[in-house]
Amino acid sequence: MKKIVTFGEMMMRLNPTNMKRVLQADQFDVNYGGSEANVAVSLSLFGDNAAYVTKLPKNILGQAAANKLREFGVDTSLIQYGGPRLGMYVFEKGHSIRSTNVTYDRAGSSFAISTAAEYDWAKLLAGADYFYFSGVTPALSAELRQAVLSACEYCQENDIKVVCDLNFRGKLWTPAEAQEFMKKAMPYVTICLANDEDFEQSLGIHAFDGDMTHGIEQKAMFEKGMQEITKQYPNVKVVASVLRNIQSVDKSTWMGLVFKDGKFTESPAYDVDVLEGVAGGDAFGGGLMHGILNDFDDQELIDYAIAASVLKLTVLGDLNITTEADVRSVMEGGAGVRVSR
Amino acid sequence: MKKIVTFGEMMMRLNPTNMKRVLQADQFDVNYGGSEANVAVSLSLFGDNAAYVTKLPKNILGQAAANKLREFGVDTSLIQYGGPRLGMYVFEKGHSIRSTNVTYDRAGSSFAISTAAEYDWAKLLAGADYFYFSGVTPALSAELRQAVLSACEYCQENDIKVVCDLNFRGKLWTPAEAQEFMKKAMPYVTICLANDEDFEQSLGIHAFDGDMTHGIEQKAMFEKGMQEITKQYPNVKVVASVLRNIQSVDKSTWMGLVFKDGKFTESPAYDVDVLEGVAGGDAFGGGLMHGILNDFDDQELIDYAIAASVLKLTVLGDLNITTEADVRSVMEGGAGVRVSR
Amino acid sequence: MKKIVTFGEMMMRLNPTNMKRVLQADQFDVNYGGSEANVAVSLSLFGDNAAYVTKLPKNILGQAAANKLREFGVDTSLIQYGGPRLGMYVFEKGHSIRSTNVTYDRAGSSFAISTAAEYDWAKLLAGADYFYFSGVTPALSAELRQAVLSACEYCQENDIKVVCDLNFRGKLWTPAEAQEFMKKAMPYVTICLANDEDFEQSLGIHAFDGDMTHGIEQKAMFEKGMQEITKQYPNVKVVASVLRNIQSVDKSTWMGLVFKDGKFTESPAYDVDVLEGVAGGDAFGGGLMHGILNDFDDQELIDYAIAASVLKLTVLGDLNITTEADVRSVMEGGAGVRVSR
Amino acid sequence: MKKIVTFGEMMMRLNPTNMKRVLQADQFDVNYGGSEANVAVSLSLFGDNAAYVTKLPKNILGQAAANKLREFGVDTSLIQYGGPRLGMYVFEKGHSIRSTNVTYDRAGSSFAISTAAEYDWAKLLAGADYFYFSGVTPALSAELRQAVLSACEYCQENDIKVVCDLNFRGKLWTPAEAQEFMKKAMPYVTICLANDEDFEQSLGIHAFDGDMTHGIEQKAMFEKGMQEITKQYPNVKVVASVLRNIQSVDKSTWMGLVFKDGKFTESPAYDVDVLEGVAGGDAFGGGLMHGILNDFDDQELIDYAIAASVLKLTVLGDLNITTEADVRSVMEGGAGVRVSR
Amino acid sequence: MKKIVTFGEMMMRLNPTNMKRVLQADQFDVNYGGSEANVAVSLSLFGDNAAYVTKLPKNILGQAAANKLREFGVDTSLIQYGGPRLGMYVFEKGHSIRSTNVTYDRAGSSFAISTAAEYDWAKLLAGADYFYFSGVTPALSAELRQAVLSACEYCQENDIKVVCDLNFRGKLWTPAEAQEFMKKAMPYVTICLANDEDFEQSLGIHAFDGDMTHGIEQKAMFEKGMQEITKQYPNVKVVASVLRNIQSVDKSTWMGLVFKDGKFTESPAYDVDVLEGVAGGDAFGGGLMHGILNDFDDQELIDYAIAASVLKLTVLGDLNITTEADVRSVMEGGAGVRVSR
Amino acid sequence: MKKIVTFGEMMMRLNPTNMKRVLQADQFDVNYGGSEANVAVSLSLFGDNAAYVTKLPKNILGQAAANKLREFGVDTSLIQYGGPRLGMYVFEKGHSIRSTNVTYDRAGSSFAISTAAEYDWAKLLAGADYFYFSGVTPALSAELRQAVLSACEYCQENDIKVVCDLNFRGKLWTPAEAQEFMKKAMPYVTICLANDEDFEQSLGIHAFDGDMTHGIEQKAMFEKGMQEITKQYPNVKVVASVLRNIQSVDKSTWMGLVFKDGKFTESPAYDVDVLEGVAGGDAFGGGLMHGILNDFDDQELIDYAIAASVLKLTVLGDLNITTEADVRSVMEGGAGVRVSR
Repeated sequence: MKKIVTFGEMMMRLNPTNMKRVLQADQFDVNYGGSEANVAVSLSLFGDNAAYVTKLPKNILGQAAANKLREFGVDTSLIQYGGPRLGMYVFEKGHSIRSTNVTYDRAGSSFAISTAAEYDWAKLLAGADYFYFSGVTPALSAELRQAVLSACEYCQENDIKVVCDLNFRGKLWTPAEAQEFMKKAMPYVTICLANDEDFEQSLGIHAFDGDMTHGIEQKAMFEKGMQEITKQYPNVKVVASVLRNIQSVDKSTWMGLVFKDGKFTESPAYDVDVLEGVAGGDAFGGGLMHGILNDFDDQELIDYAIAASVLKLTVLGDLNITTEADVRSVMEGGAGVRVSR
Repeated sequence: MKKIVTFGEMMMRLNPTNMKRVLQADQFDVNYGGSEANVAVSLSLFGDNAAYVTKLPKNILGQAAANKLREFGVDTSLIQYGGPRLGMYVFEKGHSIRSTNVTYDRAGSSFAISTAAEYDWAKLLAGADYFYFSGVTPALSAELRQAVLSACEYCQENDIKVVCDLNFRGKLWTPAEAQEFMKKAMPYVTICLANDEDFEQSLGIHAFDGDMTHGIEQKAMFEKGMQEITKQYPNVKVVASVLRNIQSVDKSTWMGLVFKDGKFTESPAYDVDVLEGVAGGDAFGGGLMHGILNDFDDQELIDYAIAASVLKLTVLGDLNITTEADVRSVMEGGAGVRVSR
Repeated sequence: MKKIVTFGEMMMRLNPTNMKRVLQADQFDVNYGGSEANVAVSLSLFGDNAAYVTKLPKNILGQAAANKLREFGVDTSLIQYGGPRLGMYVFEKGHSIRSTNVTYDRAGSSFAISTAAEYDWAKLLAGADYFYFSGVTPALSAELRQAVLSACEYCQENDIKVVCDLNFRGKLWTPAEAQEFMKKAMPYVTICLANDEDFEQSLGIHAFDGDMTHGIEQKAMFEKGMQEITKQYPNVKVVASVLRNIQSVDKSTWMGLVFKDGKFTESPAYDVDVLEGVAGGDAFGGGLMHGILNDFDDQELIDYAIAASVLKLTVLGDLNITTEADVRSVMEGGAGVRVSR
Repeated sequence: MKKIVTFGEMMMRLNPTNMKRVLQADQFDVNYGGSEANVAVSLSLFGDNAAYVTKLPKNILGQAAANKLREFGVDTSLIQYGGPRLGMYVFEKGHSIRSTNVTYDRAGSSFAISTAAEYDWAKLLAGADYFYFSGVTPALSAELRQAVLSACEYCQENDIKVVCDLNFRGKLWTPAEAQEFMKKAMPYVTICLANDEDFEQSLGIHAFDGDMTHGIEQKAMFEKGMQEITKQYPNVKVVASVLRNIQSVDKSTWMGLVFKDGKFTESPAYDVDVLEGVAGGDAFGGGLMHGILNDFDDQELIDYAIAASVLKLTVLGDLNITTEADVRSVMEGGAGVRVSR
Repeated sequence: MKKIVTFGEMMMRLNPTNMKRVLQADQFDVNYGGSEANVAVSLSLFGDNAAYVTKLPKNILGQAAANKLREFGVDTSLIQYGGPRLGMYVFEKGHSIRSTNVTYDRAGSSFAISTAAEYDWAKLLAGADYFYFSGVTPALSAELRQAVLSACEYCQENDIKVVCDLNFRGKLWTPAEAQEFMKKAMPYVTICLANDEDFEQSLGIHAFDGDMTHGIEQKAMFEKGMQEITKQYPNVKVVASVLRNIQSVDKSTWMGLVFKDGKFTESPAYDVDVLEGVAGGDAFGGGLMHGILNDFDDQELIDYAIAASVLKLTVLGDLNITTEADVRSVMEGGAGVRVSR
Repeated sequence: MKKIVTFGEMMMRLNPTNMKRVLQADQFDVNYGGSEANVAVSLSLFGDNAAYVTKLPKNILGQAAANKLREFGVDTSLIQYGGPRLGMYVFEKGHSIRSTNVTYDRAGSSFAISTAAEYDWAKLLAGADYFYFSGVTPALSAELRQAVLSACEYCQENDIKVVCDLNFRGKLWTPAEAQEFMKKAMPYVTICLANDEDFEQSLGIHAFDGDMTHGIEQKAMFEKGMQEITKQYPNVKVVASVLRNIQSVDKSTWMGLVFKDGKFTESPAYDVDVLEGVAGGDAFGGGLMHGILNDFDDQELIDYAIAASVLKLTVLGDLNITTEADVRSVMEGGAGVRVSR
């Protein structure tokens, strides 16, 4: 069985119970997650061999975060412990026209202030076939940018494929900083996930006009952007994107598009009543990598990835608690499924 | 006041609180219900005289199940106690494209292993005007098939009308088994409820192409099936069906159709945002029988039955906690109601 | 900063937790609110200076009600304490075709039986620029009708502007009683809020055909009604209304219309998935008064008022827990917003 | 099987969830109970035939109250419906040195304003062997005093035994009023329950010095009081009391004492960690009447009554949700029981 | 690091939330546990290498049970999947004089009906240093008795030490059956845990008079019993027991006693306010084995075991969620600890 | 009415719901508090005029913290807004022998990194009669030490009395640092609260042997320490202490001791079953200052302070949600109170 190692930050997420606003809340639901941890959980639940690298504080919250991954089968033996704190954020779910609000408190976390030297990639990537990171990781610090590049170099030398979900976050770095880093990292990347603004902000490639309510209509522009990536970075063999029409906090249409070996393949589009609109991109990444790890053909690959992704929109928390059977059920369009191709 | 006796199995239903999936849950909501118990509760809440016959374990869960019926006014004095256990199931409510999952653990329940001899119909049906069972009951065992047939015979001899909701369950018996039994039972039946696949699986009559997303469009086929039932079983005076277009776990359109004394009557169709898509058929049965017990005319009968049924889709749990006033309010199309005839 | 004083009754609201019906409930969520208290909270959260006048029992529930206002910054120093009880109501939220049910138990409350003499307007309105009441207050008793009229007279003499939300409640008084009172009160009113049936029931002016599912289509009729108000009561400078198409308990389209200084201005219409359909009118009043207090131009005024109003439909409880930033975000039609102009 | 009819008021009880104080609470647990309803539930759970007479409002709260009794098997067919409201109270459970606080809102309830003429005792007491009321009922109004006396007269004429739990409540009437009434009622009474201050306040008989922390030490004084009752009211054949040493909100020692046919019998004393210190007296009444209805000998009678009573202190809510097996287990002093005779 | 493999059954435990009784409950807390699984979790949380062997149904409840172990670091890779169901039980926590009630529904579980042949001990015990089972496992069926004996034989041949917690359960087998089996199994056992009645029921050795309220006073008798075990079964090198004085459901005094290499060592006695009195014996086993695996001296061994055990009494659920630091803190008698030696 | 201004840090407190440990929790209760904020809330609830100075982040958590104070009547108009974050801590309540665990994450909070220059004492202390700080505030940073000293100087110049609760926290500074600061601050202090280790750690005065289980027995030593304070700092007119015997997490005996104008006065000792053992010292400070502000005589002063303090041990959260009536009820030793003088 192929092994994938993901690298990033986990945070504690707090959200008011029962649809309350933060100012009304006297109880929070607690969840633990993070882009690359979410991918590792998805893959583990799909039956793949996924390990996760991060640094967590050696306290009860760090242990709770690691336990959560272990619960769903992720290999947590590579996690470093130490440093001052677990990053956290407060998540206030919106409803209809009321937007979701997120209040971050992640600065100075054990991971954010960890140094490149703390990650011994020869040890951490032993036995790995794939290395997965998202743009969130290098956005956190210069040291983590170096850590990612060191990992990429190790991968190149040891025939480990590098996967990058561009995952631009404007609150963490500027487009200029992102592009500077990505110019160095992309030459190592074989599989690239790019959604919405990522093309422009992370790579300086125009592929999307910024209107989240009409992403699907811009498919041609996305396709151009995907081709442009492979032109600029010929090592990239797969580019995958989610295209979205977001009607409200609770309603979206999602479809997947993959450009692989010079060929575009697209999934059906799903209309979804959104239970919780977070981590859908990570779930797409998890679904895509499951297909890659298990040699799905192009159509199955993108269909599986988007079905995994829309399923996440119906699951609470950052982790996509879904099995392969759940994904297949959506792909086959059972009784509860309305596919709007 | 006319009296109806229903006969079947009650189970404990566990579902994760607050829309969680089972793998995320550390609390379950507890409900108690079962097809025929649900009908009895509906009728009691509508003001009718309903008694329920079953066998429950003589333990705290059996007592809790009986108390729940008693709370809503069902006559529980006919219930037998004994045997090893209460059947149970775990209900994981779906959302949007994510299907609802049900995990049964009902084998070996006190009711399922009860014998025909334990049911003394002369005593149990004393004073009854109607006897109601669904296809679930005979599906459970040969002994229960015998118990149902004995009850039917007693009814025939004592001028008690027999009501059967075909209610086919593929997890409990095969179509061949169902049809073999129904051939024996249907000659006793005066009122027959048949939905979706029931015609084909339980009676071998084709009335529905199996596409749950387009039941309403197949009205003509349903009508043929209903006529065919009365042709094969001339004792049947009423056949009633729910026709459904199911768009997703959360959205459905439902309408009712009744064939009575050779005449079809149909209800308006209701678009419903589904809170919990279980026991809608039982609620239809409860509404229909309320109309029968109270001599509603055909239009009122089917309108009441379907309104009761769609109301259930907006109520949590197996039991249709609605009053006649609630049903009338839907029928009259108050402010909160959008009828799409 | 301008100061506004609102006057009315607060009640304790109990609603079953987690979408249960009252007959299923063993826990109630507790909220405290009331039309004019809700307006005061809205204004305080928007940064305005709002005080609230009422009478609460000198017990733990009266204290809890006052604390709730204080939590959100309302000046509660003018509240009187005494009398037997806090009014209350049980709120059973509907779903889809199932209507919301409200069971009131408000008779004999400390406020309802308070006398006009208990309200020393010279003291209570010291420093005020605006006095706000809704039709609920005078509907409660002859004494409270007198109290409102005394306040109006004091306002006239002291250059305090009077705001009246007609807010007709058929369970509290008859149209004849309402009209008799309003004939006396309206000559003092500068700003009048009138929704749906209010025109007809409170003023005897026809502006709406009673069909809640098609209010928006009746805009012309509403406009005539608004003009008629200013014709009959020339002191009225602003008339504002919400126009609604209510599709179901959970789905509505709302738009705002204001007639100010002889000119109509209308807001965009918003399609909303309703989380809780109460106190939307109060939220409209709060938004409107915020615009008035802060000299918004006509378009900003009505846009702000309707955005505040539809936001309330997505917030639990009687109080509109939203900030100006929340309202602006809806007005600007961010990612989570679907505006259907 | 003998039949007992109890007569009194039910209220809705609200208490903050999870040990919060009312000022911290945003959720209340909902319970329904009342002294005589509690007795009826105890008896029904013990397997006796108990019916309850009251008047409830014809609304959802009245229905919920009745359903709660029905759930536990009480005959609710004699309940009258009508009037304005269900009385209610807010219960803030204390802890250790912090006292329990109760805020009543029961004035003007459907029962409190019902008239003597509404109770047709010939119909209500048909088939009854015992009639049970507590001092709370006549304390509510002159009409209810008349209703109780009318019932007593009917009982005398029809050989129905009258049971009175003196149950003095200083918030409802004065000792003078109580004594005036009891002088009229006691001549009808056969079985009398008297605890703590009841002797003095309701009958003017001194039996207790008012120190709740040392009731047990005053056994001799109680015994004198009990004898005095039978002297003044020779129709009384049984007097029963709970003697208590209350150490804190959470810790008590309880023992029972019965004077029957001129002989005192006392139970063991139980040290109890109190989960909720309400309705222990009602539970004692329920246990005592179970023994009377089933001809227990004196020792079994008082042992059963006190064990039922202390069990209630470990059960949440007003109702004593315990079975005869539970009571027997305490009487036999199983593993979890520490008896301090 | 030494490895231990434990073998037994896991069940789903349901208990009413918030101290309610089952008849009052509409929510259950869900826990998963079982004697030998509890031991494995304890050891994993203490930092040891623990694997668990069982058979779970291949459904969502089986998966949830396994995930729970994985969450706390137990090696779940040896678990078999298949068969019909997960055993379950309903746990109604007592309070003070009210006993805890347990309703089992474990018959016919996947584990209970598994066969000896399904357990390939050469594979399951590869790399193990210790094999741990409790008397519950052989009590379930003849096949499981055979499975345990096969494991014991394999251990003897492969120098794996066998640990047996006698753990007699009268609901599962008779003393005669237990003794017949233990005669065969004990010759393989090196470490034996025996509490309370276990000596008598499982081995026919008298060591305890059956009075749970005075176990500690019977230390001399326990010591004789422990010596007798090593006399009859010379392979046994360690016998360990918990001695208890149980005052009520909520109050206990516990001390530990170990007989090792011919020498008795006893721990301090702890007075504990019990939060949940289940799985204390398993926690003792976990603590003891942690000491054995890490070569604690006799005093540290028994002190650690009893501290781990009493900590469990303060933790909700079957699993002893405590770390070595927690145990050390109790052993050192910090501020929150009252040791009554 | 006299005015008191308190100065310190507020944090968000998270604790697992329902007695779970953090590793078991998926919900946290949310509370907001801090030593000096707690004092302000106590005073406000007792009817005094209390304002609170701090710096909170300008985000939803900062707003929630301020709203919580406002809810209970504290003047929050002096609060500064800005900076990165609200400090927080996770509180895992212990039980019996299991200690309470606290995990702090307060470094880098908006308050902790605020500068002395941000606090304009002339404005903040305008109208104040008392200034209150605890040792936690200066422990946070050199800037805050300067801020406190600047406030003290302003107080001296403006006849505002300074109150200091020494409140030593070993996790925030060393005894040497504390003593260095206190040498500078104490000369300004008029009222000093000192508990347990505070004498030694903050002032270098020996008054307690460190054994929390026997504080009360060391009264003589405490008295010497109190005298020593007034000898070293003659400006101090009042020294007050809580003396404690802590038996377990859940059981304590507390008494108060005050040295005022050269005279010792002691309160009764209260045995308390502790619901939540935090902020008892702050509650003592609040009670003491209420007595000071309202000129209680010495006995009433210390009796009130200790009663307020033990009441806090029975209230959830950091804030002492108790009224003067609650305190008086404990002082008078009502039914629920067991005083062990």
